Amino acid sequence: MTQRPPAAIGMSIDEVETPALIVDLDAFERNLRRMADAARAAGVRVRPHSKTHKSTVVALKQVALGAVGNCCQTVGEAEALVAGGIKDVLVSNEVVGERKFMRLAALARDATIALCVDAAEQVDAAARAAASFDVQLGVLVEIETGMKRCGVAPGEPARALAHKIKGSNNLRFRGLQAYHGTAQHLLTYEERRVAVNEAIAAVKSSIAAIKQEGLDCEIVGGAGTGTFRFEAASGVYNELQVGSYAFMDTDYARIQNQRGGRFDDFEHSLFILSSALSLPEPGRVVMDAGLKSFSAEKGLPWIHGREGFDAYGVSDEHLRVRLPSGASMRYGERLWLIPGHCDPTINLHDWYVGVRKGRVEALWPINARGASA
Amino acid sequence: MTQRPPAAIGMSIDEVETPALIVDLDAFERNLRRMADAARAAGVRVRPHSKTHKSTVVALKQVALGAVGNCCQTVGEAEALVAGGIKDVLVSNEVVGERKFMRLAALARDATIALCVDAAEQVDAAARAAASFDVQLGVLVEIETGMKRCGVAPGEPARALAHKIKGSNNLRFRGLQAYHGTAQHLLTYEERRVAVNEAIAAVKSSIAAIKQEGLDCEIVGGAGTGTFRFEAASGVYNELQVGSYAFMDTDYARIQNQRGGRFDDFEHSLFILSSALSLPEPGRVVMDAGLKSFSAEKGLPWIHGREGFDAYGVSDEHLRVRLPSGASMRYGERLWLIPGHCDPTINLHDWYVGVRKGRVEALWPINARGASA
Repeated sequence: MTQRPPAAIGMSIDEVETPALIVDLDAFERNLRRMADAARAAGVRVRPHSKTHKSTVVALKQVALGAVGNCCQTVGEAEALVAGGIKDVLVSNEVVGERKFMRLAALARDATIALCVDAAEQVDAAARAAASFDVQLGVLVEIETGMKRCGVAPGEPARALAHKIKGSNNLRFRGLQAYHGTAQHLLTYEERRVAVNEAIAAVKSSIAAIKQEGLDCEIVGGAGTGTFRFEAASGVYNELQVGSYAFMDTDYARIQNQRGGRFDDFEHSLFILSSALSLPEPGRVVMDAGLKSFSAEKGLPWIHGREGFDAYGVSDEHLRVRLPSGASMRYGERLWLIPGHCDPTINLHDWYVGVRKGRVEALWPINARGASA
Repeated sequence: MTQRPPAAIGMSIDEVETPALIVDLDAFERNLRRMADAARAAGVRVRPHSKTHKSTVVALKQVALGAVGNCCQTVGEAEALVAGGIKDVLVSNEVVGERKFMRLAALARDATIALCVDAAEQVDAAARAAASFDVQLGVLVEIETGMKRCGVAPGEPARALAHKIKGSNNLRFRGLQAYHGTAQHLLTYEERRVAVNEAIAAVKSSIAAIKQEGLDCEIVGGAGTGTFRFEAASGVYNELQVGSYAFMDTDYARIQNQRGGRFDDFEHSLFILSSALSLPEPGRVVMDAGLKSFSAEKGLPWIHGREGFDAYGVSDEHLRVRLPSGASMRYGERLWLIPGHCDPTINLHDWYVGVRKGRVEALWPINARGASA
């Protein structure tokens, strides 16, 4: 259920109630521009992932910088995007359930809608729903590229599925979904390059096989924040489905750049602002933010800008922080936490509190928060 | 932002859109009655924890079975409880921020409100807010009982804080907060008993010290689903702040009962209903529920009632399941997932879908979902 925003426009950051999801607007805008510029330079399109930001405010800003639309993982996210004015939406995922297909087909009256398939039954279900709403749905074949999640094997199986799509009324074959999720977080630049090279090979063999059907892959989509430069330079990928680049998190901050240094293509723009709730003993502080304010499956948050401060324990509403020798904190003093994983963290909040020069400048509803169905 | 419910009253469970948060109403009601009966038999009060259920519908059901009110962890949860008709609310946690204290004081016009403190500054802040709204706030001293989170040391430090509360206008000393969180999940009955015995000793020395001030501890609160029988029988605790008992999760199902068997005081009544989205290869299924439908920091969900089915990988919207030899699943086939940790799982959803005999009978708004501030 939607909660009230923890801030008001014009407030000082010091007045924001905690815990709050903060966006450093300057850093966020630089991140958006960097990705737009990199894609333009490489001659590929950006279709940012709304699974990360869950907000049509952010999606519209991405489109204003040249993004072709957004992609998303769920039908509920697609509904939020279309309602918010995004005209070109790709569900970069399979869909299951007759009603889900109908909801998606209904959206195609207002926007260009595509989805992914990796099985013949999904093609049939999409065709039935599209026919019943008298609309056209775009369909991409998802291929397995090395992450071992969904997707058909590249090459011949991809061709067979494209063939079925070609023969289905109300469906239009649009290309390949070829996301390599696990490649994003491999530690070294070289490991990521090698992994994406496998994906590129899978894409190439699939494009060639599908050509036998007389079909072109108008969209070859994939890539994430950790690997997008490889896909952009591949000559076969033409749409980057990047999400985390807008915000960053510790999971991406842990990977290395080409020189073995810290991955620094983008800046941390997303924080959980938290307050010291309890100072039970010297050197130990309990903050007022826990598992209901950030996800912890990728590790505990980093403490921004406080050398030696170490988050060591989390519970639902608390984070325990150990202070370095000689350091102390006051009751109510604030820390900026960098979340381990931005996507599920954002999905816990109803509002982005956008801050510039210490003042609240934006309150953006996270309108697809919880749109998991 | 609030999403539409994934079901409608009267639907068959088969029509519910997935992922959905399902409550088995029969099991849920048995759980509520069991706790109410156990507390009545022990002569202690139940003050269930709304940090778990986040819903005033559930809170009212608990009160209807004799609960004295609810406790909660945040001011936002307290606001939801009071707005939903709960007349006696304890914030079983410290509070930080002037506005938070004002919000809490404002609630005291409509309900009996208490909060916990472990520092003198918190007492001052509570007194200021209560005076400015011309209300009375109840105050409990939180003592450290072995979990090493918040709380003053038992005995003399607890007395000193009670003394300060006694001298503060608009505040009323009401007792002790003595929750031992880590004890809840210790594997064996004996380990839990020993841990709670430490907490009981801390409570006793604090009660004795506070008696020197001429103050009685009207409330001695603590206990959780894993240990409540110890606190109930302690002779000093008089309010059980139990939460998970209504739903259960794998974290509680892993602990042992007195005979070394599985903890079976309560039944699993909470599930994530999910559908098979992709069947990429024999023996491997990808379900349509991931980190945005359940929390995974206490481990991946168990698959309910399907021997040998093993969840082995999770991402934001997917769960990978390995099937036992010879088993297979169909596209769209459903699995009932038992979440690792019920509290942060519930906090991801806007609606409970209550089911009885295979039919949707209730849609309860999770109105304090996201009320972390």
